[in-house]
Amino acid sequence: MKQRILLSALMCLLFALPSLAQQNLFGGQDLKSAVVNDDNTVTFRFLAPDAKKVEVAGDFAEKVEENPVGGVVGTGLLPMTKDANGVWSLTTKPLQSELYMYLFVVDGVATTDPNNPYVFRDFATVSNIFIVGNGKADLYKVNDVAHGSLTHRWYNSKSLGMDRRINIYTPPGYENNTKKYPVLYLLHGYGGDEDEWVTYGRATQILDNLISQGKAEPMLVVMPNGHTAMEAAPGESSLGFYKPGGEEERADERGAFESAFTEIINFVESNYRVKPEKESRAIAGLSMGGFHSIHISRINENTFDYVGVFSSANSIMSAGGEGIYANFQESLKKQKDNGVELYWLGIGKDDFLYDANKEFRATLDNVGMKYTFMETEGGHIWKCWREYLSEFTPLLFK
Amino acid sequence: MKQRILLSALMCLLFALPSLAQQNLFGGQDLKSAVVNDDNTVTFRFLAPDAKKVEVAGDFAEKVEENPVGGVVGTGLLPMTKDANGVWSLTTKPLQSELYMYLFVVDGVATTDPNNPYVFRDFATVSNIFIVGNGKADLYKVNDVAHGSLTHRWYNSKSLGMDRRINIYTPPGYENNTKKYPVLYLLHGYGGDEDEWVTYGRATQILDNLISQGKAEPMLVVMPNGHTAMEAAPGESSLGFYKPGGEEERADERGAFESAFTEIINFVESNYRVKPEKESRAIAGLSMGGFHSIHISRINENTFDYVGVFSSANSIMSAGGEGIYANFQESLKKQKDNGVELYWLGIGKDDFLYDANKEFRATLDNVGMKYTFMETEGGHIWKCWREYLSEFTPLLFK
Repeated sequence: MKQRILLSALMCLLFALPSLAQQNLFGGQDLKSAVVNDDNTVTFRFLAPDAKKVEVAGDFAEKVEENPVGGVVGTGLLPMTKDANGVWSLTTKPLQSELYMYLFVVDGVATTDPNNPYVFRDFATVSNIFIVGNGKADLYKVNDVAHGSLTHRWYNSKSLGMDRRINIYTPPGYENNTKKYPVLYLLHGYGGDEDEWVTYGRATQILDNLISQGKAEPMLVVMPNGHTAMEAAPGESSLGFYKPGGEEERADERGAFESAFTEIINFVESNYRVKPEKESRAIAGLSMGGFHSIHISRINENTFDYVGVFSSANSIMSAGGEGIYANFQESLKKQKDNGVELYWLGIGKDDFLYDANKEFRATLDNVGMKYTFMETEGGHIWKCWREYLSEFTPLLFK
Repeated sequence: MKQRILLSALMCLLFALPSLAQQNLFGGQDLKSAVVNDDNTVTFRFLAPDAKKVEVAGDFAEKVEENPVGGVVGTGLLPMTKDANGVWSLTTKPLQSELYMYLFVVDGVATTDPNNPYVFRDFATVSNIFIVGNGKADLYKVNDVAHGSLTHRWYNSKSLGMDRRINIYTPPGYENNTKKYPVLYLLHGYGGDEDEWVTYGRATQILDNLISQGKAEPMLVVMPNGHTAMEAAPGESSLGFYKPGGEEERADERGAFESAFTEIINFVESNYRVKPEKESRAIAGLSMGGFHSIHISRINENTFDYVGVFSSANSIMSAGGEGIYANFQESLKKQKDNGVELYWLGIGKDDFLYDANKEFRATLDNVGMKYTFMETEGGHIWKCWREYLSEFTPLLFK
C-alpha cells in the first residue's frame, strides 16, 4: 500500500501537470457532476462565477415552457443556484431508474457539462448522459458479468457499390467454443446510424446482462447502417468530420436497404459461426428501423421467425405502394402463412406514430398475423427503445 | 432523383420534427463549425447573442497568456467577433496539416462547440476535434481504402484477478484468408486508457492508410489498458459513469503491468491467427507506455524484435530499482545480446522528459544497444505520438 501511495505521488508529479495540462482544455473545473446519490436524486455542479443564470436542460425535467431559451427543445429546464464560490448546483428530486441526457444552459447558451466526460452523439449533436440504477436501467449499466465483444467491421455491398460499416456483438464465450449461435439484426431510426444502438441503445450492456442472468439466449446482434446513401456513421467514413443532418447523406433510394438486406445476412452467415435457419434469425428496429423490419421480413417471406417493430408503422415511407412496397397485404399474409414465431410491437402512448401503429395492427389483424403488443408511457424516444429491446430479447430463440 | 427528393421531403416531415426534437438538446444552433476551408484556414461559428466575449481555445493557437480565463490551460485563446445576428465567428490563418482540439470560452466559461458533434475524451475531459488535411494528417483521416476491424474485447487476467478490456485491430482481409500476421502491442500513457490510441491516436486510420499505400505490413495492433488497477476505460467498467482522474483507479502496483504482460501475449497468440515469434512481435507506447515497452521488452529478454519508445525514458516510475526494475543495465545488455531488430526512440524538443530521454539514450549507448532516434518539434502531446506511430509502423516486420 505504501508503495502504491509512493507511486501515485510520483506519477502525479511527473505526469499530471505537464501531460494532462497539455490535453485538458477543460482545466479549471474540479467538481463532480452529475452525481447520482443513494436516494436516486442527482446533483449537478458547474463553476461559472460571472454567469447570471444557469439551468439544467434534461429529459428528466418536466417541460416548463414551450420555447425555452438557448434553443433547448423538447425538454424541461431546472434552475441552478450559485454559492459564494461561483459554483452553481442543483439536486433533483429522486428520479426513476433510467439513462438520462442533459446539458447546461448558461445565460441562454446551451453547453455540455465540463465535469462529465460521458457524452453520446445523436447524429449531429452530443449530450451528457448518466444512469440512475436500482431498477430497469441496471440492465443498461456495465456490470461485473461476462462481457461479449463488439466489433466495428466493414462489409462489401455489391448492390450499393460500396464498403459499409457494421457493428457486430458476439456473446461471452463466442470465441472459445465451437457452438453455432442465433442472430438478431437490430436496426436504427432515421435520425441514427450503426453506432446508436451501441451508445443510446445500450445493446451490448443489455445483452451482456440478460445473458448473464439466464434471461436471454446467447446470440449475435448485428447493427448495420440503414441509410443506403451512407458508408458509415458520421465521422467514420471518408466524408470526414463533416456536420451531419443535411438530407444529402440520407437521400436513400426507396426500398434499397430492404432489397440489399440479404447481402448482410449472407455476410454474417459466411463470416460468423451462426445458425443459418429461420428459427435462429430475428430482426427488429426502431422507427425507420421498425419499418425496415416489417418490409425486410415480409419480402424475405420465410426467413425470420422473430420480428420486432419498435415505435413504428407501415405507413412511414411506403406511400404509393410501389416497388418493394407493392402487394403489401398479400405478402404479409404469405409471411404469416409461412409461420412466424413472434411478431412483436411496442409503442409509447405519446408517440406521433401512435395512430399509424394502430392502423398497422389492424392490417396485421386483417391478414391474421398474431402479434404481441406492448404499450408504454412516453413518446418517440430512446427510453422506450431500450425498454423494448429489454422486453423483446428474452422472447427470442426459445 | 425525383424519388429521392420526394423521399427526403417525406422523411423530413415525418421524422425530423418530432423525433429529432426529442433528442436534440442542442436545438437552436444551425451553423457549420469548425469548417476546414480549401486553403487550410478554419472557420468557427457560435450563436450567443447575449455573450460579451467569445474566444476559441485550441492547440493551434499560440499561447497568449500564462493563466487564461475559463480554466483553459496549455493553449492559446483567439478572439471571435460577433455579427448582427449574434453569431460569433473566427477564421484562422492557414494551419499545418494536423488533428487539432479546441473549445469555446464564452464570457470566461469553457464549452464545447454545439455545431461540432465530434468530441474525444481524454480521461476526465472532452474536446472538440477537427482535421486539417493536405499533409501528414491525411494519414489520420478515414479514407476510401480497405478498412480493418476494431474489436472491443475482454480477456481474463489470472494474475490481476479480473476480466480486462482490450482493443484489437485486425488488418483488412484478416477474416478472409488463412495467413498468419505479426503483432504490434501499442500502449497508452498515464493519462489514458485502452481507448486513447483509437481516438486521439488514430491508430486504426494510420494502419488502414499505411497498409493501403503498401508502406506498412498488414499487422494486428493490440491496445490493452496499462493501469492494473482498472478493468477498463472510464465508463466501460462496472464503476459506471464516474468522474475519472482521482488517483485511486491508477494506483497500480509497481511493475504489475509489465509482469502480467505475458498473459496478454498468450491471449493474443491463442485467440488470433498471428505469428508467435520474436521477429513478428513489436511493442511500443507513449510516455508511461514507452516506459512499459522498455521494461516489458527487457524482462522478456528474447521476445520482441521491435521496440518503440515515444516521449519516454527509463527514469519514470523505476526509481529505486526494486522488483522488476532491478538489474536494469544487465538485463538491457542481455536483451541487446539476444538481438533486437529495431529500438526506436522519438521525443519532442519541448518535452519535459527530454533530459531523462537523453539520459536513457546514454544508457543504451552504454550497453551497446543500437537505436534509431527521432527528435521533433513539440512537447508531451498527441501530435508527436501520432507522428511517431506513422514513422515507426512502416519500419516493422520487413
